[in-house]
Amino acid sequence: MSFLVILRIVGLLLMLFSLTMVPPVVISLIFDDATWDAFVIGLGITFVTGALLYWPARNARRELRTRDGFLITVMFWSVLGLFGSLPLMLAADPSLSFTDAVFESFSGLTTTGATILTGIDLLPESIRFYRQQLQWLGGMGIVVLAVAILPTLGIGGMQLYRTEIPGPLKDSKLTPRITETAKALWYIYAALTLTCFLAYWLAGMSWFDAIGHSFSTVAVGGFSTHDASIGYFDSATIELICVFFMIVSSLSFGLHFAVWREKRLRHYLVDPEFRFFIIFLALLVTITIATLILSGTYDYDDSLGLRHGLFEVVSVATTTGFGVADFTAWPGVLPFMLFIAAFVGACSGSAGGGIKVIRILLILKQGLREIHRLIHPNAVFSVKVGKMRISSGVAEAVWGFFSAYMLLFVLMLLILLATGLDQVTAWSAVGSSLNNLGPGLGGVSAHYGDMPDLAKWTLVMAMMFGRLEIFTILVLFTPAFWRR
Amino acid sequence: MSFLVILRIVGLLLMLFSLTMVPPVVISLIFDDATWDAFVIGLGITFVTGALLYWPARNARRELRTRDGFLITVMFWSVLGLFGSLPLMLAADPSLSFTDAVFESFSGLTTTGATILTGIDLLPESIRFYRQQLQWLGGMGIVVLAVAILPTLGIGGMQLYRTEIPGPLKDSKLTPRITETAKALWYIYAALTLTCFLAYWLAGMSWFDAIGHSFSTVAVGGFSTHDASIGYFDSATIELICVFFMIVSSLSFGLHFAVWREKRLRHYLVDPEFRFFIIFLALLVTITIATLILSGTYDYDDSLGLRHGLFEVVSVATTTGFGVADFTAWPGVLPFMLFIAAFVGACSGSAGGGIKVIRILLILKQGLREIHRLIHPNAVFSVKVGKMRISSGVAEAVWGFFSAYMLLFVLMLLILLATGLDQVTAWSAVGSSLNNLGPGLGGVSAHYGDMPDLAKWTLVMAMMFGRLEIFTILVLFTPAFWRR
Ligand SMILES: [K+]
Ligand SMILES: [K+]
Repeated sequence: MSFLVILRIVGLLLMLFSLTMVPPVVISLIFDDATWDAFVIGLGITFVTGALLYWPARNARRELRTRDGFLITVMFWSVLGLFGSLPLMLAADPSLSFTDAVFESFSGLTTTGATILTGIDLLPESIRFYRQQLQWLGGMGIVVLAVAILPTLGIGGMQLYRTEIPGPLKDSKLTPRITETAKALWYIYAALTLTCFLAYWLAGMSWFDAIGHSFSTVAVGGFSTHDASIGYFDSATIELICVFFMIVSSLSFGLHFAVWREKRLRHYLVDPEFRFFIIFLALLVTITIATLILSGTYDYDDSLGLRHGLFEVVSVATTTGFGVADFTAWPGVLPFMLFIAAFVGACSGSAGGGIKVIRILLILKQGLREIHRLIHPNAVFSVKVGKMRISSGVAEAVWGFFSAYMLLFVLMLLILLATGLDQVTAWSAVGSSLNNLGPGLGGVSAHYGDMPDLAKWTLVMAMMFGRLEIFTILVLFTPAFWRR
Repeated sequence: MSFLVILRIVGLLLMLFSLTMVPPVVISLIFDDATWDAFVIGLGITFVTGALLYWPARNARRELRTRDGFLITVMFWSVLGLFGSLPLMLAADPSLSFTDAVFESFSGLTTTGATILTGIDLLPESIRFYRQQLQWLGGMGIVVLAVAILPTLGIGGMQLYRTEIPGPLKDSKLTPRITETAKALWYIYAALTLTCFLAYWLAGMSWFDAIGHSFSTVAVGGFSTHDASIGYFDSATIELICVFFMIVSSLSFGLHFAVWREKRLRHYLVDPEFRFFIIFLALLVTITIATLILSGTYDYDDSLGLRHGLFEVVSVATTTGFGVADFTAWPGVLPFMLFIAAFVGACSGSAGGGIKVIRILLILKQGLREIHRLIHPNAVFSVKVGKMRISSGVAEAVWGFFSAYMLLFVLMLLILLATGLDQVTAWSAVGSSLNNLGPGLGGVSAHYGDMPDLAKWTLVMAMMFGRLEIFTILVLFTPAFWRR
């Protein structure tokens, strides 16, 4: 393991990350919210720590290998999550405890969007902006990670596309082409954010809210500058804009990249993951709206049922987690159904969470194959996604992911129950964190402030595991990884 | 499809099954409980229906093929479950509705042991006996099914052993050797029941209770002739006997068969499923007893913590479902943990339920393999269980089962929630039925009587799906099965 090189990278990273505390300082000065010092001090500590790590290792240079990639990826998110919590701890308002600040910071950077805060509207503008920015940065990081880095490590749904998308994804060495792909992804991500910002702004948001919400929309994050989330604006136009960008941001950026490179929109239509995702969403929206209207949930105001149904389904199923209505109080099976949809999650190669659509698609296809194998025991069936035949290696990776996901889910659920939480709160909190969704059911339908510390730390781990597709972290726990 | 042959078999089966209503008549006369007429009428209806099905098809003879096996298996359990409910409907006491009688009957025959009854101690002796007998017959059926029939259909954990156990399991044609295996299994099953009966009787049970409980113990069933279940006897000796036989009955009867054939006890010790199961049980027992004692659940009466801990863990983890204490009221994480253990379930080829130990073992091993593959991307690892290398076909069957299990679980949970049940009651009722366990949490920790009818029917389906390893039923829902 090239520890010095890794030290150098982490040092560089921290110094770079410290610069992201400059915009909140600017915001603080604009709004005169008297919180600029928290960010300046945070910046200072982060930069100096980064420099101290970087300096002794500044000349360490070596070609990085696959195995280093796991360590760097996990370090990246843990270190940023920890230092990102500094301003939240330092600010006089909200003056968070260490645990709460770390929870909020990780929740932002992993684009989970679970919050321990209430009274967000009353917080200093710089803090409100900073949370949104954390999500935006995290979303960017995730997209690069999912499309350009994890596949080279052999992890994640996007590995399926390795043979399909020409160029950058094929290389097995870490550094050379990642930069090129990352740059292209950055352009797409930035362009999407800018468009989303303009749309929100033209639809009536203040520039402050428009920036903040475009950040957390494109990142599939779900943080808001208001307690009432998108519901604050009470605007059908803003909701529709939000729905559109939530969906676009939950699609594979590898796919966006291919469309952008070859200027062919048809790539979307032939993509099996895209098709499955859209049909799945349409189905959920239909069931939800029908139930809301037939049950008279909104006093038979059909337009409200329509609006709320569409928005909440897309928000939860894409794992964004914005709110315009309290879906956890909807009748019958709707809360549970929406919540389960978040387990399916977004497309691979997006900033969205969950198990990922392509994996669910593969699992379903393999299930069907099993049935056919039983009926025709001597025939050979291969599983195809689109035109691509799925190798047994990829299939086993998907299964491995699925069972590790379930196992982790049960283990963390046991820990949360041990802290004394009730079953609904506990399972939905773990599910929401592991799926990087945000809102939960029961005691965490509004916020996570009342949880015991052990529960909060467990959920931070859940967010990280979910975000890094589990195995990136899991390998670090094996002795074999550290040998030689 | 050889419909006539299947008609003939089902007819024969019903006529045979009608004879199982003779013992309850005898019991009724012995105890003079005035319920003999329900059994005589039930016997009559069952026999006549059987004869009417059998007669037109009596000359139909054809070699059965694999595909017929699915249909016969599913018919077997559905038809027996339906006709088995007759005496429960006909008897003046308990005078069950159609839904309740069917629920109770399927719960018995699938060895689930979930009951809609209360006041069991006050019921006519013949009814109390009949419920136990249903479990015993169901258990016998399951063992034969799991060891001798499902593997030939390509279903079930036991297929792993197909190459290991000499003789009867290797054949691919249905009829010839099944009879021989079934006979051997029957001897083992009967011997186990007799031993269990004697042990209970010598430990102080009445002959009536000893018969009844030996029936439901060996079947991993969990029905009791008392509301208080095994707790009624308040005897450490009886509890220890019960623990021993619950464990023995949850082991693979394929393994018992191999030991019996070759007279070598060492077969147990080298069996990977056996070892994993015993270690898993030991771990659970240790955690549970430690928690009970440290938390002072039984007012620091350590011997009670020890007794209750041991018994309940074995009862739930083997999916038997007897009770001596209300484990659902135990502190912290214990109720959930025990309940999750039932998902792991018993060994393949037993009458126990759950996902089955061998599958969990395989899933864990494949997960570890995935991690090693990530660290050493170019090496080839094969998954072994004991000395046997697991083929990708078997691995995919296990994964397919696991995901079908999860999918079915979620679907049925959605239905139960739609009937208005709370989440804890709903998920534990589905889990308990799908795992053929019996008791649940929340509103079904005591009995299932208060559920809406739709929920009861869904749970009956869950019991069937769980009992028949899901795919046996699932194939019947595909058009491909019915073609040609
Ligand atoms: K989110
Ligand atoms: K049972």
